[in-house]
Amino acid sequence: MKNTFGNSIAVTVFGESHGEAIGVVIDGLAPGIPVDNNRIEFELSKRRPSSSIDTPRREPDKFHILSGVFRGKTTGTPLTIIIPNENTKSEDYTYGIARPSHADYAAFCKYHGFEDYRGGGHFSGRITAGIVAVGGILLPMLENMGIKIGTHILKCGDITDSAFSDFEKDIDALKNSNFPTISKDCGAKITEKISETSKKGDSIGGITQTAVIGMKKGVGEPFFDSLESLLSHALFSIGGIKGVEFGKGFDFADALGSECNDEFEIKDGNIGTLTNNNGGINGGISNGMPILFNCAVKPTPSISLTQNTVDFVKSENTEISVKGRHDPAIIRRICPVINSISAIVIADALASRFGTDIFLKGAEKCSLD
Amino acid sequence: MKNTFGNSIAVTVFGESHGEAIGVVIDGLAPGIPVDNNRIEFELSKRRPSSSIDTPRREPDKFHILSGVFRGKTTGTPLTIIIPNENTKSEDYTYGIARPSHADYAAFCKYHGFEDYRGGGHFSGRITAGIVAVGGILLPMLENMGIKIGTHILKCGDITDSAFSDFEKDIDALKNSNFPTISKDCGAKITEKISETSKKGDSIGGITQTAVIGMKKGVGEPFFDSLESLLSHALFSIGGIKGVEFGKGFDFADALGSECNDEFEIKDGNIGTLTNNNGGINGGISNGMPILFNCAVKPTPSISLTQNTVDFVKSENTEISVKGRHDPAIIRRICPVINSISAIVIADALASRFGTDIFLKGAEKCSLD
Amino acid sequence: MKNTFGNSIAVTVFGESHGEAIGVVIDGLAPGIPVDNNRIEFELSKRRPSSSIDTPRREPDKFHILSGVFRGKTTGTPLTIIIPNENTKSEDYTYGIARPSHADYAAFCKYHGFEDYRGGGHFSGRITAGIVAVGGILLPMLENMGIKIGTHILKCGDITDSAFSDFEKDIDALKNSNFPTISKDCGAKITEKISETSKKGDSIGGITQTAVIGMKKGVGEPFFDSLESLLSHALFSIGGIKGVEFGKGFDFADALGSECNDEFEIKDGNIGTLTNNNGGINGGISNGMPILFNCAVKPTPSISLTQNTVDFVKSENTEISVKGRHDPAIIRRICPVINSISAIVIADALASRFGTDIFLKGAEKCSLD
Amino acid sequence: MKNTFGNSIAVTVFGESHGEAIGVVIDGLAPGIPVDNNRIEFELSKRRPSSSIDTPRREPDKFHILSGVFRGKTTGTPLTIIIPNENTKSEDYTYGIARPSHADYAAFCKYHGFEDYRGGGHFSGRITAGIVAVGGILLPMLENMGIKIGTHILKCGDITDSAFSDFEKDIDALKNSNFPTISKDCGAKITEKISETSKKGDSIGGITQTAVIGMKKGVGEPFFDSLESLLSHALFSIGGIKGVEFGKGFDFADALGSECNDEFEIKDGNIGTLTNNNGGINGGISNGMPILFNCAVKPTPSISLTQNTVDFVKSENTEISVKGRHDPAIIRRICPVINSISAIVIADALASRFGTDIFLKGAEKCSLD
Repeated sequence: MKNTFGNSIAVTVFGESHGEAIGVVIDGLAPGIPVDNNRIEFELSKRRPSSSIDTPRREPDKFHILSGVFRGKTTGTPLTIIIPNENTKSEDYTYGIARPSHADYAAFCKYHGFEDYRGGGHFSGRITAGIVAVGGILLPMLENMGIKIGTHILKCGDITDSAFSDFEKDIDALKNSNFPTISKDCGAKITEKISETSKKGDSIGGITQTAVIGMKKGVGEPFFDSLESLLSHALFSIGGIKGVEFGKGFDFADALGSECNDEFEIKDGNIGTLTNNNGGINGGISNGMPILFNCAVKPTPSISLTQNTVDFVKSENTEISVKGRHDPAIIRRICPVINSISAIVIADALASRFGTDIFLKGAEKCSLD
Repeated sequence: MKNTFGNSIAVTVFGESHGEAIGVVIDGLAPGIPVDNNRIEFELSKRRPSSSIDTPRREPDKFHILSGVFRGKTTGTPLTIIIPNENTKSEDYTYGIARPSHADYAAFCKYHGFEDYRGGGHFSGRITAGIVAVGGILLPMLENMGIKIGTHILKCGDITDSAFSDFEKDIDALKNSNFPTISKDCGAKITEKISETSKKGDSIGGITQTAVIGMKKGVGEPFFDSLESLLSHALFSIGGIKGVEFGKGFDFADALGSECNDEFEIKDGNIGTLTNNNGGINGGISNGMPILFNCAVKPTPSISLTQNTVDFVKSENTEISVKGRHDPAIIRRICPVINSISAIVIADALASRFGTDIFLKGAEKCSLD
Repeated sequence: MKNTFGNSIAVTVFGESHGEAIGVVIDGLAPGIPVDNNRIEFELSKRRPSSSIDTPRREPDKFHILSGVFRGKTTGTPLTIIIPNENTKSEDYTYGIARPSHADYAAFCKYHGFEDYRGGGHFSGRITAGIVAVGGILLPMLENMGIKIGTHILKCGDITDSAFSDFEKDIDALKNSNFPTISKDCGAKITEKISETSKKGDSIGGITQTAVIGMKKGVGEPFFDSLESLLSHALFSIGGIKGVEFGKGFDFADALGSECNDEFEIKDGNIGTLTNNNGGINGGISNGMPILFNCAVKPTPSISLTQNTVDFVKSENTEISVKGRHDPAIIRRICPVINSISAIVIADALASRFGTDIFLKGAEKCSLD
Repeated sequence: MKNTFGNSIAVTVFGESHGEAIGVVIDGLAPGIPVDNNRIEFELSKRRPSSSIDTPRREPDKFHILSGVFRGKTTGTPLTIIIPNENTKSEDYTYGIARPSHADYAAFCKYHGFEDYRGGGHFSGRITAGIVAVGGILLPMLENMGIKIGTHILKCGDITDSAFSDFEKDIDALKNSNFPTISKDCGAKITEKISETSKKGDSIGGITQTAVIGMKKGVGEPFFDSLESLLSHALFSIGGIKGVEFGKGFDFADALGSECNDEFEIKDGNIGTLTNNNGGINGGISNGMPILFNCAVKPTPSISLTQNTVDFVKSENTEISVKGRHDPAIIRRICPVINSISAIVIADALASRFGTDIFLKGAEKCSLD
């Protein structure tokens, strides 16, 4: 469905980096879900460039809810949020010179030159602001059900953060932290690393780690809509993500079954596993353990160092040094996007399984009688 | 859509391991595509357990085309293939004892005990035989357009195969080889490694590498239906796959932009990149370079070593040693499944972009006049 | 989605009239739904040609459940039913001569001559046997929730049946009757009318009327998935249906709002309407009144009278007298198809609204705790 | 998909009558399609209340394109149009008293009282302004391919317009006429009839007739996505439409096959039919003849005459006289909505069949080489 995702709860994104606005429509939400503008703003603030290691493009991200909210709560009909583009500098972009590892050339092959190329157009990371605004509604909705989602930078260059240990505590701390690492030290080191890289006109990649805790058991489908399928589908929509692994992921390669099978145990009447190498998913379906996954994020393709490339309009070889205003690393700003897009997948999977009204309590009297 | 996948070309899987038959419906294929039973059988033979390192369950995999083929060619209406289950030994399975890292318990949470648990039921790897049968039709269809797909075992335990070097040659060699490695030596070593592991009652994981060459440029969608999204969605449907990465994937984490950006070059009028760290996809859209991805495959959960677990019917802790007939590693047999499921995604993406009739030549006279 | 329909519960049809088998896959059913082969056979018997006014083609319709049922109940995974074609007489059909008002020529324009043309191929009414088999599972499932569906012939030629008066009684009587009219007299007259028409080598059309009673309130979507949209989408899939109207339908044209608005009333605490001109649907959503709709059914295109037509292979004008074995009217046999396809839509709409488990009672303990 | 419709080209609607704006996202359009604001305004003007027989609510309908258009042409990425609501008088509406034949009560059952009830909220006919704006882009796109769509009032009360005779001439005349009837006299009579009805505080229904000419042959799917299914699905989304019939429709009921089969004929090398009782569709697929269908439109439910009803909040019987600003008949204003929604279905069906680029000429060089 191109720019729409979801079965019971469906999200449609639109907009271009230097167009009038970007935005998102979310359809299929239960009615009566509280919409707190402060929380939306809070989530957007986590994605917003703010420090020396982020792009100098500063957008106020003033979101605007056009439909689907009445008296502070969702109506159950499509909820539309737009975020006007204010700080656009289109003169930074000329058409035809392919920025290496950007979508410019692939977009030309698809759209025949009609694409809005300014600032990457519809391929810009700016589109993800709409996703984060949706997260500002869905994350608290899930929290009300006891489901929490948190993402931190597991790795950036040669610096590695601690993995999740006390899930709930770590997720709460990440929510309140202004840099998404579990270890404070590590945050400072990553900031420095990115800063250094930036000074050299270069960029750097990283790995994020995400946990979803409190997930209901028995959610997901055995074959094409496994939870892994749904999550990876949504995650790979985010520009810059080039790998997704669940639980032990690529480390399963040299593991033995006896080392990495997750043994079950009943404790206080509840069934869980002793380890969680499968990241909370067996056979595509949640087993009640934390859902755990990592995303590989490539270095921002925009670097000011000179690179060889082509002018695909003139059909000739040339060179480029990407000016514009860009992030030397998106690894920090991608964390709230991952939280939000995961919230969309989890909410949709729950709604598909239990009906949308699972998010409401005690409200469905009329319809079931 | 649970057990259905695809937009223009849609595949539906059905069946249980010990039921009457498993099968697949493929809808949206162009009419007039040749269907060669020998090629279907050839692809199935690559997935079939055959040697000492595979499960002792030996199924003839006699497929049967029920609809959608007339006079050796597709009709354009739904094509149904069934593969009867013949060699079932249901007495191997008792209900209630969760096999660690298998779907048993998650399935119970979803299906409330009504699931056909015998041999893993609908969660069995046997479902993928239907996918491979479809590959037996789609792979030659794509080859006729100049698109080839090949998968080899990149890693198993501590043994590593050579990466693709001469893509076309390597893919052709893999097609004709009875063990999916690029280096012959490596195949022998992996066989031995698996064999040893098996003797200890254990199992082992691995990593596969896949290349799609000859892909049209400009295919895929910028946001939710990026080629990475579509491919990973389908790949994570396959039981045992726990990670998917494109191009450099998780190795992007400690790379600099200047090291891994793919510079463009025009050569003989054709635009390509000097390196291919992005695996042929920029901004979710094919750029004409080989599409490259790796899959992490976990060790088969079925091991005969004793493990702790629960009986979820009796709600008590217990132990299990999985008997039945199982593979100590699925890394070999998963390769044709990956080829086939990739063919489904690629064919669907092409049909969505160019119309189904792209697969036919000179046949669409009536409808366009 | 071509041959697949439904959101939460999705049905895929396949097969050709003179191929090996026709069939259907239904995915998304709750687990634990009883599957009674006698009821499936009962529904199929209502569609089966049986009397002098039906086609002389007599198929035993021996259905076969390939997957999705275990110990007499649904598993929750895809349920596949096939019905082998046994009594095929392919020599009755030659290719190229377009039967007027049949799909032959349109199919040629779409499938370029690769279509299986024998007996209408995938366009044959025989495909609907699979739909009726699904009805044999869904109709009792809905009945268990208090939802009943019944269809009768409202009109055939100049003969008109009584409309529904006592819904429950009428629907029960229709279920147990071997001719789908409310008035017994009318059934005899219609049989005679069809019989006469048949003797002249001609065919005749009609109108059916359907009621769905016991429907939950608040089901359907305000815009693109209004209940009318969903029902009409499914109904127009059935070959021969050329009109669908809800409630007063086309009679609204010369009505005044004051004459046909349905006034509300509370009676014994329940809100209903005094009249039901809107057929139980307001704004696309069920209001708790019986859902009422009529379908216009065209005369069977196959008539033995000589007609002008073309040979689209030779590109020349010619004549045709359709031999083969055909019904002079499908108005009787279409009734169980309408019941079954309506059951699919209603079940899907309920599952989308309340979750699939609404069809199960007291079974979802595991997953929600 | 609730508020989204379409496979290759998908439309999502959003907004409420008295909210901030209504709007629409259209995704999947080919790049390079000219977007002419004058044509959009022209189509909106045809839907706009303008004369004594329309609602006194006068909205300027100032549309605003937020995304998807660059330098006057489509980019190929989601195109978003919003139309702000300016002239809202929310004090006209109080909550709890169900307006007979309106969605108020059904919406309450679905949304539990959280719905934005003002002016019908998301159920308002105002949503269709977004559809008409899309028509302003798609109708000229189709015209460029030789496909034209026109709708006229076939019947209103006891007044009947002439049917289409010279299709192209009639459609062109309707486009340039300010009242959608083929016979001028009839337009005056209908205006008078509606005016009289309005004076009595009442409302009246009608029937529209639509023709799509120049349609490619071989478009549509044999089963669930028959052209009739797709068109009726979209048409029944429009509030007030309660019946859809193709070709002879309900008049097939008392017709004989020999009277209404459409005989084929080759003339100047082109295959067509002598009559068109099937409305251009055989077996769900276009046969090249004009696509013809009628829609039954119910009287506007809002009438100022006193009606019995309930207050569903207080749970008591009461009376209502609907004040507000409403149309005594929507039969005139619904015509451009039907044209536009038909254009969406036709464009989507063509794109699904031939690929989106069918709408572009000579532009797809890059991607196919």
